[in-house]
Amino acid sequence: MTHLPSSPVTEIGEMHPTRWGDPAAATALPDSARGLVELAFGELASTPAHEPVAVPAPQIETALLDELRARVGAEHVLSDDATRRLRTRGKSTFDLLRARAGDLADAPDAVVRPGGHDDVEAVLAWATEHRVAVVPFGGGTSVTGGLAARRDGYAGVVSLDLVRMKRLLAVDPVSMTATLEPGLRGPEAEALLAEHGLTVGHFPQSFVHATIGGFAATRSSGQSSAGYGRFDALVVGLTAATPRGRLDLGTAPANAAGPDLRQLLLGSEGAFGVITSVTVRVRHVPETRVYDGWRWPSFAEGAAAMRALAQGGLLPTVVRLSDETETAINLARPDEIGGASAGGCLMITGYEGTPAAVASRRAAVTELFEGLGGASLGEEPGRAWVEGRFAAPYLRDSLLDVGVLVETLETATFWSNLDHLYTGVRTALESSLAAGSPAAPIVLCHISHVYETGCSLYFTVAAKEGEDPLAQWAAAKSAASDAMLAAGATITHHHAVGTDHKPWYAREIGDVGVGILRAVKAELDPAGVLNPGVLVP
Amino acid sequence: MTHLPSSPVTEIGEMHPTRWGDPAAATALPDSARGLVELAFGELASTPAHEPVAVPAPQIETALLDELRARVGAEHVLSDDATRRLRTRGKSTFDLLRARAGDLADAPDAVVRPGGHDDVEAVLAWATEHRVAVVPFGGGTSVTGGLAARRDGYAGVVSLDLVRMKRLLAVDPVSMTATLEPGLRGPEAEALLAEHGLTVGHFPQSFVHATIGGFAATRSSGQSSAGYGRFDALVVGLTAATPRGRLDLGTAPANAAGPDLRQLLLGSEGAFGVITSVTVRVRHVPETRVYDGWRWPSFAEGAAAMRALAQGGLLPTVVRLSDETETAINLARPDEIGGASAGGCLMITGYEGTPAAVASRRAAVTELFEGLGGASLGEEPGRAWVEGRFAAPYLRDSLLDVGVLVETLETATFWSNLDHLYTGVRTALESSLAAGSPAAPIVLCHISHVYETGCSLYFTVAAKEGEDPLAQWAAAKSAASDAMLAAGATITHHHAVGTDHKPWYAREIGDVGVGILRAVKAELDPAGVLNPGVLVP
Repeated sequence: MTHLPSSPVTEIGEMHPTRWGDPAAATALPDSARGLVELAFGELASTPAHEPVAVPAPQIETALLDELRARVGAEHVLSDDATRRLRTRGKSTFDLLRARAGDLADAPDAVVRPGGHDDVEAVLAWATEHRVAVVPFGGGTSVTGGLAARRDGYAGVVSLDLVRMKRLLAVDPVSMTATLEPGLRGPEAEALLAEHGLTVGHFPQSFVHATIGGFAATRSSGQSSAGYGRFDALVVGLTAATPRGRLDLGTAPANAAGPDLRQLLLGSEGAFGVITSVTVRVRHVPETRVYDGWRWPSFAEGAAAMRALAQGGLLPTVVRLSDETETAINLARPDEIGGASAGGCLMITGYEGTPAAVASRRAAVTELFEGLGGASLGEEPGRAWVEGRFAAPYLRDSLLDVGVLVETLETATFWSNLDHLYTGVRTALESSLAAGSPAAPIVLCHISHVYETGCSLYFTVAAKEGEDPLAQWAAAKSAASDAMLAAGATITHHHAVGTDHKPWYAREIGDVGVGILRAVKAELDPAGVLNPGVLVP
Repeated sequence: MTHLPSSPVTEIGEMHPTRWGDPAAATALPDSARGLVELAFGELASTPAHEPVAVPAPQIETALLDELRARVGAEHVLSDDATRRLRTRGKSTFDLLRARAGDLADAPDAVVRPGGHDDVEAVLAWATEHRVAVVPFGGGTSVTGGLAARRDGYAGVVSLDLVRMKRLLAVDPVSMTATLEPGLRGPEAEALLAEHGLTVGHFPQSFVHATIGGFAATRSSGQSSAGYGRFDALVVGLTAATPRGRLDLGTAPANAAGPDLRQLLLGSEGAFGVITSVTVRVRHVPETRVYDGWRWPSFAEGAAAMRALAQGGLLPTVVRLSDETETAINLARPDEIGGASAGGCLMITGYEGTPAAVASRRAAVTELFEGLGGASLGEEPGRAWVEGRFAAPYLRDSLLDVGVLVETLETATFWSNLDHLYTGVRTALESSLAAGSPAAPIVLCHISHVYETGCSLYFTVAAKEGEDPLAQWAAAKSAASDAMLAAGATITHHHAVGTDHKPWYAREIGDVGVGILRAVKAELDPAGVLNPGVLVP
């Protein structure tokens, strides 16, 4: 195992609470998309200018912060408005709408920046002693309310910002693992590993901003999950700081030594502890990458082809399928949204690896698809998807700017239940958003994560904003969530529970499951200071 | 999803507490093996005849059993000696030695046979009310003391025998899943699935006797794990009965809805609940099966070749590698144990699937191995391995009969730590067993489960029995377990914790990990009646 020096701390693209992404990268609504939504919803609102929103004054006693400063260093505890604003909530449409309406009530009272595991333990000891809520903060990309801690009964709320914990702690090129600190953003982790010719291979839409710790704490799944696996499948070890002390897990790739406690911390969203290092399986940086487009006569036929891939052991690195509406709107190609579409359903397949492995798998998939009725579209649609793959959240901002409510939600189920789930969620969204609205909503869907036994469904929704867009979307999301549960599916395939999904999550795991979570929470965090209100029903 | 009628209850090959397997299948020590051990250990003891061992009288009040009979039916509560004897302990060498010495002190006071989930809940309610220890019993093949519940403080101990819960509850040929009851033994589950052209693909050495529930509760891993995956990786859903009520898990192949609670029940060894159904991923019964032999100059070179397979995405269905000693003794070929060996290290590779997939993978592996210095031995060694794959435990009985102490133990680690672990455990076993013994022990090892990031190590040990074989083996196992922990490896890759591994398990997961287990145990089983003394340190 090679032990490595730390990388410099960098702060890139900090996101304002009213918008996604790097402020410098924000764009106006493309004309093609404007045409499309005007066709659907009529005249659009004019673009409002968003003033910087004021954050509430800190509500924590100064003496408490002074004590925290004494424990971790004064320069690592910040309480200025600008810093607190940038650590307020996440990036759900709920979050953006509230911020745009001037509501930053969830702003932390202070931001503390630990330099390593021991600092995190010191913060948790301080918080436990004084009953201060602690919200771990990585990239700030939560879309489920995972960064909005409960205030009542607490002496204050601090954001535990992992921005200083950005080291590649170790690389093991024999075992093909790497140990990373939680504050590394996706591109930072990839850059450090690339120096060793390695990659994690985890590329969710939030990749540019989200962090290693966040990927682990939320059970993230990336766009290349078919080839590299979900993030929880990549983790072979982790360390967490808890109010009870340090937890080190991962003595082997797999074992039979009791329950897999790694899988209890993965997805724990900062409510059981703060993940302070993650050891992941890595791969060699692929020599070759190729992405193809395919057209299927229908969503059902495209889904059946995906199932054939997964069950035949022929999965490419990337595979995603848009339904008829998403294909028609060309959402997979941001440069041509609303442009002409030849109908059917667009699928993107991507292959990464050695030239021989890529050629062999691509040939096998092509043979299978041609037999199943797929039409090859060549590499151009794949290239367009790759170029725009992280851009969709910027488009949401542009649409919100013109009075179009946009949000996404996702679920997963077994293959035999796919049609039922798809129809149920789509119908629930359409019915809810059509009620009391002058224009029918647009509901798009794609499949982007596939398994031998089932797959995910990812919906994108656009509707003309009504009087109260928060209530409008809350009703639609509630109806869609009810439909997921009614179909026996999960409330989330890759976005975690946060605060938004809790009522449905409680139904999904049942009373006995809720009891387990509460027991683990009470054991690890007896004062209840870790991200209170998140995850645990 | 197809709902299916139940299969008839069958009782096959019930094992006596002094021996492995079907009593009718027991054999005398083969001459080849006798020659080998005589060479190593000198003159052997004569074969003693084992009298049927008396079980202690039931210690539970009759009135309590009458109440249990009223809840689940009188005919399903048995307290005769013969039934209780067959549900006493498992099959570790410790267990066999104790039984051979006339000690069946862990015999349950009664055996209850629930017919389904509701019956199990009724038994747990009764046990909780009266503080009776409940030991779930599947195949009785535990080798870690998983069936020896603590008695102190309990009104009695009952064995919860799952022999009536043997239904294939559902098959979903679209999602490729099957829902099985826990009492199905390996061959019974495979026979029911074969009617649908399906297989689980889980073939541990205990396959003939062990059950679906046991595979789940102990995180079993089978001989075809490279191709089909560990049992915990096959489980997409499960139902458990707990004193708090019913737990239903598995709404999707994978999700981000909090921690994966399935992975908390898998490996819980009956201490958190009784698993009453398991939904597993299934595959089509392979059209073709081929097994090859390969010879490597050394264990290290063979292991490096396995690593190349795993990290190159080229794993066959089966891959196992014997070290120099195991190869020399020919343990992989029960018909030729002790026969001539050409030196080096024997590897078996097996390929299962469609003819095209088998041919393609076999060709790729052959090309890789030839480049790495492997020598092909053709199909004969593979065939011999397949024929003898479930036979080794019978050989242990024959050796115990002639005064040779035999046992196995196993661990796992990351590839970069493999040599260190191998040397550490081997040295610990040799040192411990050589002390005070007239003859050096024989220590063999193989790798039989491989991952991208690491692999398992499975040791087989033979030593001439001393005055007190229980103490002799306890010292050796303790030394080997210390060596595993000292090397940072796991106390068990596929045999669970039971009672035997608890001290090392506590060190492996640390105080915070132990706290989690205790909290979950207290929540789900507040009276502490579920398999007390097992798993939870």
